[in-house]
Amino acid sequence: MFKAELSDSSILKSSFDAISSIVDEVQIQTDSEGFRLDALDRSHITFVHLELKASLFDEFVCDEPEKINIDTDELMKVLKRSKSDDRVLMSLDEGNFILTFEGEATRTFKIRLIDIEYDSPAPPSLNYPTEFEIPFSLLKDSIQDMDIFSDKITLMVDPEYFKAFAQGEFGDANIEYLHGEKIDASAKSIFSLEKIREMLKADKFSDIVNISLGDDMPVTLTLRRVANDGELSFLLAPRIESEE
Amino acid sequence: MFKAELSDSSILKSSFDAISSIVDEVQIQTDSEGFRLDALDRSHITFVHLELKASLFDEFVCDEPEKINIDTDELMKVLKRSKSDDRVLMSLDEGNFILTFEGEATRTFKIRLIDIEYDSPAPPSLNYPTEFEIPFSLLKDSIQDMDIFSDKITLMVDPEYFKAFAQGEFGDANIEYLHGEKIDASAKSIFSLEKIREMLKADKFSDIVNISLGDDMPVTLTLRRVANDGELSFLLAPRIESEE
Amino acid sequence: MFKAELSDSSILKSSFDAISSIVDEVQIQTDSEGFRLDALDRSHITFVHLELKASLFDEFVCDEPEKINIDTDELMKVLKRSKSDDRVLMSLDEGNFILTFEGEATRTFKIRLIDIEYDSPAPPSLNYPTEFEIPFSLLKDSIQDMDIFSDKITLMVDPEYFKAFAQGEFGDANIEYLHGEKIDASAKSIFSLEKIREMLKADKFSDIVNISLGDDMPVTLTLRRVANDGELSFLLAPRIESEE
Repeated sequence: MFKAELSDSSILKSSFDAISSIVDEVQIQTDSEGFRLDALDRSHITFVHLELKASLFDEFVCDEPEKINIDTDELMKVLKRSKSDDRVLMSLDEGNFILTFEGEATRTFKIRLIDIEYDSPAPPSLNYPTEFEIPFSLLKDSIQDMDIFSDKITLMVDPEYFKAFAQGEFGDANIEYLHGEKIDASAKSIFSLEKIREMLKADKFSDIVNISLGDDMPVTLTLRRVANDGELSFLLAPRIESEE
Repeated sequence: MFKAELSDSSILKSSFDAISSIVDEVQIQTDSEGFRLDALDRSHITFVHLELKASLFDEFVCDEPEKINIDTDELMKVLKRSKSDDRVLMSLDEGNFILTFEGEATRTFKIRLIDIEYDSPAPPSLNYPTEFEIPFSLLKDSIQDMDIFSDKITLMVDPEYFKAFAQGEFGDANIEYLHGEKIDASAKSIFSLEKIREMLKADKFSDIVNISLGDDMPVTLTLRRVANDGELSFLLAPRIESEE
Repeated sequence: MFKAELSDSSILKSSFDAISSIVDEVQIQTDSEGFRLDALDRSHITFVHLELKASLFDEFVCDEPEKINIDTDELMKVLKRSKSDDRVLMSLDEGNFILTFEGEATRTFKIRLIDIEYDSPAPPSLNYPTEFEIPFSLLKDSIQDMDIFSDKITLMVDPEYFKAFAQGEFGDANIEYLHGEKIDASAKSIFSLEKIREMLKADKFSDIVNISLGDDMPVTLTLRRVANDGELSFLLAPRIESEE
C-alpha cells in the first residue's frame, strides 16, 4: 500500500516541469523512506535525480517498495491542474497512479502506468575539485544572457568569481559574480545552452543552486530544500570542442 | 429610434466573446423592454440566448422594434477596444450599428449591418428532471481538467454530488462537488468538450452557473445577473455514443 | 575615449525598441555634448532622430567624436537583458560596442561594430502650419482602434479637436479629442497604420507626444524628456491616395 499527502503541490510541479523536458518516461521508486527517481535522457547527456523524503509529506505510508513507471508528460499535464491551495493525495491501484486534488471540489486523476523494462541507472560518482553556491536566478539570467550570441556556455570558477561566457559571430556575453566562497582551485567547462535551459524550469524548488565544476568535467547542479527533506540534482556532460 | 447607454462594457464584452465563438452572424432584436438575441450554430449543436433588460442600461430608448443584423467578429473586435472606465453608447443609423466609447477622447465605431434573411430560431422547450447551481469557476476547471485525457465530458448529478468525468487512453479525470441542493433524481449526459469551452468565455457575466440536466438530454447552462436584469443561456446537444 | 553611465536603461530600451523596428543599421554619433543618431528606413518613408544629451547621463566622457555603426537588432537583444535596477555602462574598444549591466553580478556584452559606408541623412526641414500635444496613450489607442477596419489612418486637427479616422469595408472608426491648444488653421493628412505602429514602441520615453501636421504633408511625432535632456522624433511621409 502506498499513500502520500502534501499540502502544497509546488515541489512536485517544479520538479516534474524540469524532469518532463529531459526524459519521456521515469520509474519512481517509493519505500518507507520516501520517493526517489534516477533517469538518463535519450542522448545520455543529462542525468537527473529526485529525492523527496517521507518527512516532506504531511502523511506518508509505504508498506513495501513500489515502482511507479510513468510517462512524464502525462504526469505534468495533471500536476499543472493543481491549484496552490489544493491538498494533494497520491496513491496507486491496479495499473494506475492516482492523484487527487482536494479543494472546493475533489478532483481525481488516474494516470495509466506504463509497461517498461527499466533498470534504474546509477548516478555516476565524480570527484569535483570545486563546489559553490549561487542564487538560482543568477544562473537563469546567465543562460538567457548567453543565449543572445551562442548556443553554448562556458562555466568557470576561480578563487573569487563565478563566471559564464559565450562568444558568437555578432558579439560576446560575459558574467562575473563574486561568490564569496573558499575556493583554491580554478575550473572551466563548456556546456550546451539548450540542455541547461531544461533544468531551469525547476525554479520553485530552491532559491539557491549548488554547482560542482571541474576542468572539462560534467557539471552537477543541485537544488536542496532548506529543511533537507528533498533534493533535485542534474548532472550534465560537457560539450567537446574540436580544436580549430 | 434606438439609443442605449451603459457605464460598463464588461457585460457586453463577456457575452459577445462567447457568442462570437459560437455563431458568425446574429440578429439582435430590440424594443422598449430591452435587447435580445437567439441564435443557433451552423452545426445545430448549440443554441444561445441573450437578454439584457432596459433596466440594465443607464438610459434605454427604443420607440419601435428594431432588428440589428451583425457580424459577431466585427462587433467583438470593437467591444475589445472599450476600456473599463469608458461610458458606452449604442445607436443605429442608416445601415450601421454605432458604438461610442466616451473617455479621455470620444471614440466612435460604425459597424456595417449585414443583409441576412433571418428568422430568429425559437429556443427548444425542454422539461428537465434536475436543475442546480455551481460556481462558474468550478465548471471551467472541470472542462480544463477533462481536456487532459479526452475530447468529451460526462456531466452527472445525483442527490448529493455534481460530477464530471472523462476517460482516455492515458488516464481518467473525475470531479466531485457536493452541490447542497435538493435533488431527488439522478441524470447523466455526454458532451463535446470543445463546444462547452466556447461558452466559458462568458465568465464575467456571472459567478454562478445554473445547470439543467437530464439523461441523454441536452444541457442548459444559464448565467443570470444578480439584479435579474440580464440573462445569457446556452443549450447544448448531447453527444451520441455508439455502443462498443 | 568614450564612456557613458546611466542608472536606468529604460530610455535606451524604449528608444531602440522603436528604432530597431524601423531601421536595421544605424550610426550613433557621440561627442562631448552627447549621443545622436539620424536614420532613414529602407523605403524612405520614416526618418528617425534620437538625441541624448550628456546631462542625461550620470557620467559622460567623450574626448573626440566617435561613430558607432551598429546592428539595431543585436543592440536591442542586449538592451532587453538589462533589468530596471541595473546600472548601465557604455564604452567602445577595438571593433566592439560594450554594454555593462551592474547588479547582483556584472554582466558585460560586446557587440561587434559593423562596417558600413554611412553618410548620416539630414533631417528634412519642414514648415508646419499646426503643432499640438496629446497624451501618448491617446495616439496609441487611436492607432489600435483604426486597425480594426483599415490599414491607413487619417490624422486631422482643427481649432478645437484632434481627430483620427479610418474607413473600411466592414465599418468606420473615429476619434475626437479636445486638444485645448491655440490653433487657428486646420490640417489633414493620411498615413500608413503599420508605419505609425513602429514608433509606438517608444512609449516609455515620454507620456506626451508633440504632433506637427499639415495638409497632405508628412507628420512629425516628437517625444521630449521633461528635463529637456533627450528627444526622440519620427518624421513619416503621407500616403498618396488616388482619386476614386
